[in-house]
Amino acid sequence: MISGVPHLTTALNGPMLELERHLLIHQARVETWFREQWLQTPAPFYASVDLRNAGFKLAPVDTNLFPAGFNNLNPDFMPLCIQAAQSAVERVCPSASRVLIIAENHTRNLFYLESLETLRDIFEKAGLEARIASIREDVDAVMKVELPSGRSCTLEPLQRDGNRISIGDFSPCLVLLNNDLSAGRPEILEGLEQQVVVPPLVAGWSDRKKSDHFSHYQAVAELLADRIDIDPWLISPLSLQCGEIDFMKREGEECLAKNVGAMLQMTQRKYDEYGIDKSPFVVVKSDSGTYGMGVMMVKSVDEVRSLNRKQRTKMASAKEGGQVENVLVQEGVYTFETLGDEDAVAEPVIYMMDHFVVGGFYRVHTGRGVNENLNAPGMHFEPLAFAEPCNTPDKADTPDAEPNRFYAYGVIARLALLAAARELSF
Amino acid sequence: MISGVPHLTTALNGPMLELERHLLIHQARVETWFREQWLQTPAPFYASVDLRNAGFKLAPVDTNLFPAGFNNLNPDFMPLCIQAAQSAVERVCPSASRVLIIAENHTRNLFYLESLETLRDIFEKAGLEARIASIREDVDAVMKVELPSGRSCTLEPLQRDGNRISIGDFSPCLVLLNNDLSAGRPEILEGLEQQVVVPPLVAGWSDRKKSDHFSHYQAVAELLADRIDIDPWLISPLSLQCGEIDFMKREGEECLAKNVGAMLQMTQRKYDEYGIDKSPFVVVKSDSGTYGMGVMMVKSVDEVRSLNRKQRTKMASAKEGGQVENVLVQEGVYTFETLGDEDAVAEPVIYMMDHFVVGGFYRVHTGRGVNENLNAPGMHFEPLAFAEPCNTPDKADTPDAEPNRFYAYGVIARLALLAAARELSF
Repeated sequence: MISGVPHLTTALNGPMLELERHLLIHQARVETWFREQWLQTPAPFYASVDLRNAGFKLAPVDTNLFPAGFNNLNPDFMPLCIQAAQSAVERVCPSASRVLIIAENHTRNLFYLESLETLRDIFEKAGLEARIASIREDVDAVMKVELPSGRSCTLEPLQRDGNRISIGDFSPCLVLLNNDLSAGRPEILEGLEQQVVVPPLVAGWSDRKKSDHFSHYQAVAELLADRIDIDPWLISPLSLQCGEIDFMKREGEECLAKNVGAMLQMTQRKYDEYGIDKSPFVVVKSDSGTYGMGVMMVKSVDEVRSLNRKQRTKMASAKEGGQVENVLVQEGVYTFETLGDEDAVAEPVIYMMDHFVVGGFYRVHTGRGVNENLNAPGMHFEPLAFAEPCNTPDKADTPDAEPNRFYAYGVIARLALLAAARELSF
Repeated sequence: MISGVPHLTTALNGPMLELERHLLIHQARVETWFREQWLQTPAPFYASVDLRNAGFKLAPVDTNLFPAGFNNLNPDFMPLCIQAAQSAVERVCPSASRVLIIAENHTRNLFYLESLETLRDIFEKAGLEARIASIREDVDAVMKVELPSGRSCTLEPLQRDGNRISIGDFSPCLVLLNNDLSAGRPEILEGLEQQVVVPPLVAGWSDRKKSDHFSHYQAVAELLADRIDIDPWLISPLSLQCGEIDFMKREGEECLAKNVGAMLQMTQRKYDEYGIDKSPFVVVKSDSGTYGMGVMMVKSVDEVRSLNRKQRTKMASAKEGGQVENVLVQEGVYTFETLGDEDAVAEPVIYMMDHFVVGGFYRVHTGRGVNENLNAPGMHFEPLAFAEPCNTPDKADTPDAEPNRFYAYGVIARLALLAAARELSF
């Protein structure tokens, strides 16, 4: 049982404190700017954003438009989720009284089913009838799964009839995707002209590119940084892009090595500027495919040149069998939030519905380094729900006090949400 | 120190349980209906609604469009207030980064100043610079008042310059009235064409009539009752209206006596229909002027005829000296929620921002009867914050379980809010 809130173990928190102070001082400016942005580019229906807090830098590393993990949020903040869900429904489909949730395909993952059931319950409490459908072909009858929480989750086979989908006679105008489409866009979901599908199919990993997301993120980070007069590097990871790479055939490796070298140098230059006594590292990511797959951390150019067969295979296989082609070379951001005597690494994950931050939790992992990927396949983590929501900054308190740190998380997470909104609208 | 949640002491809760059960079963229908209504008639910026829960009936008695008492809400639900305030600002003035709050005139009431400061803090946390102005002529310099909570409240003199108002160079586009204008519409607030004033001046007691509000309430209560197939009487007090009455000159008294008699009979008929073994009573209210003033409870026609001088004076003098003219004769609704060994009477007060319920508290009063006015001038009450918000109904629990009772309160309060919205738009 993990309790308490992580604390930054690094002393290198000068610029970070400065960032939090800036966000607090310029809070009205930040919030007004966001309001203007949402008018121009409406937020995706919902999202979760993985952040890394290096003490000297706070940046998003993953933006998930089909969030799971709702069961990890603090139950005390369910009212916030309910209110935000009401706002989100009002915006996309105000006449809706029912919602059909399309589940992810990993129907045997009880943690995922707990999240689905929590999500369904949020909509029920928000006043919509909510049911869950599976698009797996082997789910051909109603499937009721008992959950560790004592609840149950009912998955029903999805049916297609003309240009509508349904579960029996349950065929609502609002369809909520909770499936990231990393296996491709399923035929059954195409061309649903009479139903509102949110997020749209193009938000799935079959269409999305991480490089697009981070280009948009860099653009909005620069806009916000300009508004509050900070170096955008404090909130945005440096990125470079490689063309086609075939890890198995060892094609395109030279470009990758060159970009990794350049990224290490660029990062070192920023570290020097801020007097940060750490070794830069680089994250190499498959440009498409779910986060957590096709990701590796490297500390030198040599590491790229000497990848073994296992590492190559891992990079070549994104989730559900996609082939790695384009590759994103990104500045690695340290995680300096740790918890307990074991210094377990903690990575904040922030949840949003519409453009409201509705909660978050720490992904706490023992036995992993500060510069390793915390969302790797098969990894075990323990969730630690935030004790406070992210919308109660307190100017009377210190910039790194809990409500203020969480506020900063909420700002950076919303910035990633805005980048995703632009991704979908362009 | 009062703790715990009131329980209904009456056994006469058959119809009420039926109402709560209906609201739960038809929750999706209720919420969809509200969504449609808010699209047609946007909600006032904020409001509080006093309810009375008779066990067999749940109805609003007061709808305040300039709510005070924010300090009485559960601090745990401030995040809900903040989120709702953000929604409200987005709707009325999305470009706003500052808000000017116009205070009530009773600047010496520390409870009121605590509420003002809580309200200001909600806007600050929502990301707006918020300052408070007084329109009192004797507030001619900055007035900082230390509050019992340890905070302070700063009131500043309001200035007019052309068609804008300001505090010095603080002249935001958004002006939030927290003054019910029962002394009339002050010249300084008229014709502010360059600023958005919410709620509009016509929402003040100088323009508003209680009879209008309850006519609209009756209409929306009938619509909702039809949607969920209940008797509208279960959620709406019967009302009749008298023409001009001068209590001091004893003019119009015959009409009043006649209407009181009719109302007692109408109520008795409903009591008979539902087998309610209670004596009907009637509330006589001044049609304009703040709630709590110019109100009396009568149990017989004779009582109206034999009013003594003190009672006449009380009815004739609404807040800040208005003269009672039109009078509303309303079915009295019992309060059967009581608390503790002393059976202190508890009356729920529900708070809303935009169309979201953000919290509530019980006005707990010892030594007052179940059929007396709990909001009378000079009355002392103790606030008891709701332990749960009003938006987390739980179908798996009993209809009268706490989250479900609070949900029912939220529905009826929003119905009164909708009536107020129609009042302002017609």
